Amino acid sequence: MTCYLDYNASTPVDSRILPAVAEAHATFANPASTHHSAGQAAAELIEEARSRVGSFVCRPPQDVIFTSGASEAASIGLLGVMLGAPDRRNVVVSATEHKAIIAAAELGARLSGGEVRRVDVDGEGLVDLDMLLALVDETVAAVAVMGANNETGVVSPVLEVSDIVQRSGAYLFVDATQLAGKAPLEDVAELADLMVLSSHKIYGPKGAGALIANRQVQRTIVPIAAGGGQERGLRGGTQNTPSIVGFGLAAEYAMNEQLSDSVRIGALAEDLFSMIVNDVDGVVLNGSKSHRLSNTLNLQFCGADADAVMASMPEVMVSSGSACQSAVPSPSHVLLAMGRTSLEASESLRISLGRPTTRDEIRVAASSIVKAVNRVRDLTADREPINHDA
Amino acid sequence: MTCYLDYNASTPVDSRILPAVAEAHATFANPASTHHSAGQAAAELIEEARSRVGSFVCRPPQDVIFTSGASEAASIGLLGVMLGAPDRRNVVVSATEHKAIIAAAELGARLSGGEVRRVDVDGEGLVDLDMLLALVDETVAAVAVMGANNETGVVSPVLEVSDIVQRSGAYLFVDATQLAGKAPLEDVAELADLMVLSSHKIYGPKGAGALIANRQVQRTIVPIAAGGGQERGLRGGTQNTPSIVGFGLAAEYAMNEQLSDSVRIGALAEDLFSMIVNDVDGVVLNGSKSHRLSNTLNLQFCGADADAVMASMPEVMVSSGSACQSAVPSPSHVLLAMGRTSLEASESLRISLGRPTTRDEIRVAASSIVKAVNRVRDLTADREPINHDA
Repeated sequence: MTCYLDYNASTPVDSRILPAVAEAHATFANPASTHHSAGQAAAELIEEARSRVGSFVCRPPQDVIFTSGASEAASIGLLGVMLGAPDRRNVVVSATEHKAIIAAAELGARLSGGEVRRVDVDGEGLVDLDMLLALVDETVAAVAVMGANNETGVVSPVLEVSDIVQRSGAYLFVDATQLAGKAPLEDVAELADLMVLSSHKIYGPKGAGALIANRQVQRTIVPIAAGGGQERGLRGGTQNTPSIVGFGLAAEYAMNEQLSDSVRIGALAEDLFSMIVNDVDGVVLNGSKSHRLSNTLNLQFCGADADAVMASMPEVMVSSGSACQSAVPSPSHVLLAMGRTSLEASESLRISLGRPTTRDEIRVAASSIVKAVNRVRDLTADREPINHDA
Repeated sequence: MTCYLDYNASTPVDSRILPAVAEAHATFANPASTHHSAGQAAAELIEEARSRVGSFVCRPPQDVIFTSGASEAASIGLLGVMLGAPDRRNVVVSATEHKAIIAAAELGARLSGGEVRRVDVDGEGLVDLDMLLALVDETVAAVAVMGANNETGVVSPVLEVSDIVQRSGAYLFVDATQLAGKAPLEDVAELADLMVLSSHKIYGPKGAGALIANRQVQRTIVPIAAGGGQERGLRGGTQNTPSIVGFGLAAEYAMNEQLSDSVRIGALAEDLFSMIVNDVDGVVLNGSKSHRLSNTLNLQFCGADADAVMASMPEVMVSSGSACQSAVPSPSHVLLAMGRTSLEASESLRISLGRPTTRDEIRVAASSIVKAVNRVRDLTADREPINHDA
C-alpha cells in the first residue's frame, strides 16, 4: 500500500470534477471568438468559472484574472504593480515566501532599480512585525506575505501585516495558494490588494490559477503578458477552458467543504503526529503550533537525514522542503529563516494530508515513518554527522 | 448543420489524444517531486512529451521549454532575450505579427529604453526585405517574423530573413504557432534562434505550448517567470501534466500527418474558394497566392460588411481578424499593413479549415456564405458606405 502525503505539492483532481473537465474539451472554440456560437459557449464556461472563483474569494467576478497557475499570477501581479509604480522602486517580502514570489520580487526590483527588503520571521515562522514596520515606507510598491507557508503550514498574521502596509500606501500581496481550501479566506480576501491562487492545490486540474485584484489595482498593473488582450489585458493567451472549468468547480467544493475538510484532516494529522511521537523520540515540530494549517506537519527527526528517511520508505510519499525546490538539493530557505541550522533543516520532512487521506493510510504512514527513522538512525549512529553548513 | 471553419483560432483535441489526456489526470503528483515515485511518474510523462515535441521541431528534447501556450512562450522568449542583452536595446518586428508578439516587443523596448522597429509588408503580406536590411543592426536584440500569419496564412520567407538577421548578430524569433502542423517546420526550426508553438492550434489540449531555443540561447534569457525553477529556470510553475501529454501526442500526429493533412485540407479550401467565386463576384483573396497555408482563405467580399455577413449565417463559424482581437472591433492591423483600407478590411472574412473538415461542410459553407453575402449586399445596396477611416 502506497501512501501519498504530499498534498501541499499537488492534489489529485476531485473525482466529482473530472467529468466536467473531460466534457469541456468538447467546447473547444477559442473563448475570445465571441462572434460565433462555439466561441460564446466557451466564453460562458469561463464566466461561470469566474463567478465560482469570485464567490470562493468573496469578490465580484471581475476581480478574478485567470492565469495558468499561481506562479504566473504572482509574476503578473507583483512585477506588474512594481513596473506600474516607478516612484516606488522597492518591494518587501517575508523571508519564507515561495521561491516564485521571491523571484518575481527580485526581477521587479532589478527592473525598477530598487531593492528587495526581506522581513525576518521568528522561530515559529511568524513575520517580525516590528521589522516589517521599519521596512515599509513610501518607496515600497508592494509587501508580499504568504497566507500560509507551503513547507510548514504556518499561517501569517495578515490582519496585523495589513495594518502596517496600509499606512504606507503600498499594496499587500498575499500568496493564498496553500491557505485556499484549508482555512477561511474571507479575512485575507478583504485585506489583500493582490492575491494569487492555484487550481491544482485545491483538487482542481493543473493549468489554472488566478490573480485576484479589484479594478483599481488592475489599472495600476503593467502587463508583462498582454498577449491578445484576454483577461482585461492582464493575461493574454487563449484561456484553458477545461482547466478553468475544473478550477471553478474546485473552488466551489473548497468553499462548501473547507471547514469540514480541515477539521477531519486536522484530526488525522494530529493522530499521525501522536502515533509518531509515541514511537520515536527526538521529534521536533517546525513552525507555530497555534497558527498553522491543520493538514501540514513539518517534522525534524533528530539524527535522521530526511532524504535517507524518504529513500528508506518509498511507499510513503512526503517531501523535504518544497516540491518546486526538489531538483536543487539545498537546505530549505524557510527552515533556515526560522533559525534552524542546515543540519536541522536536512533532518526535516514535510508531511501534508489531503481530502482523500484515510485513517488506514495514517496508520501505515506512521508505522513506515517510525521504522524508517529508526533504520536511518541505526545506520548512521556510528558516523560523524555531515557538516551541512560547510 | 453548423460548420466550424475557425481552426486558426482553436482546434478541437484530436479524439485519438483525449484518452491519454484523461488518463494523465491520474498521474497527478507534482512533476518536480522527483524524490518519490508518484512525482517520478509525472516527470516521465513530461519528458516523453518533451521528446515528442523535440522530434516534431527537429531539436533535442532539452531545447523544448514547456509553457502554458504560445503567448506565454513569446513573452518569456522575446522579453527574456531583450532583458538579457542590455547593449542591444532595440527589437524589430514585422508589421503583421500577432498582437502577443507586438505586446512583448513593446514592453521589452520600454524596459530596455529602446524602440520597436516595424518592418513593412508588401501587398501580398510578405516582409519587405530591403527595409528589414536597413533596420537590423548591432543595437537589435531580436527580429520577430512569424512563420505563417494567423489571419491570412501568408508564409514568411524565413530563409531570406535569416540571412539578414544572422549578419547582425541579432536573434531570429519565429512565431510558428500557425505554421506548425500545416507546413513543413524543418527549415524554420533550423534557422530560428527562438520559436514558439501552441498545443491547441495543432489538435492538442489548451494549456500547453513551448518555447524552442538551444542551450546557448537559453542561457542568455533573463527569466520573467522563474518561479520554482522548473523548465531550466525559464518557466516556473507546476507543469500541466495532462495538457503537456496531449501536446506531445498532438506534435507526433502533426509530424506524421502534416503532409497528407495539408494536401487534403488544401484541396477542400480550393474547392470552397471556387464554389464561392463561381457564385458571387467582387471577391478578393487577401495575401499571397503562392506563399500561403493551404487551409486559410482570407476573403474580401466587396460591398458586404464582414460582421454583417457573419451575423447573417450563424451556422457558419468563421472570423474577421484574429480571435484574440474579437473583443476589440477595430480593423485588422494585418490587412491594414498590407495596404488594404479600413473599409476593405471590414469586408474581409477569415475562413480556416481543419483536420475534421468534410466535403459536405464545404458545400454547406459555400452556399451559406454566398447567400449571406448576397443578403448583406442587397440590404446595404441603397446606403452610403460607412466611412471606416473617419
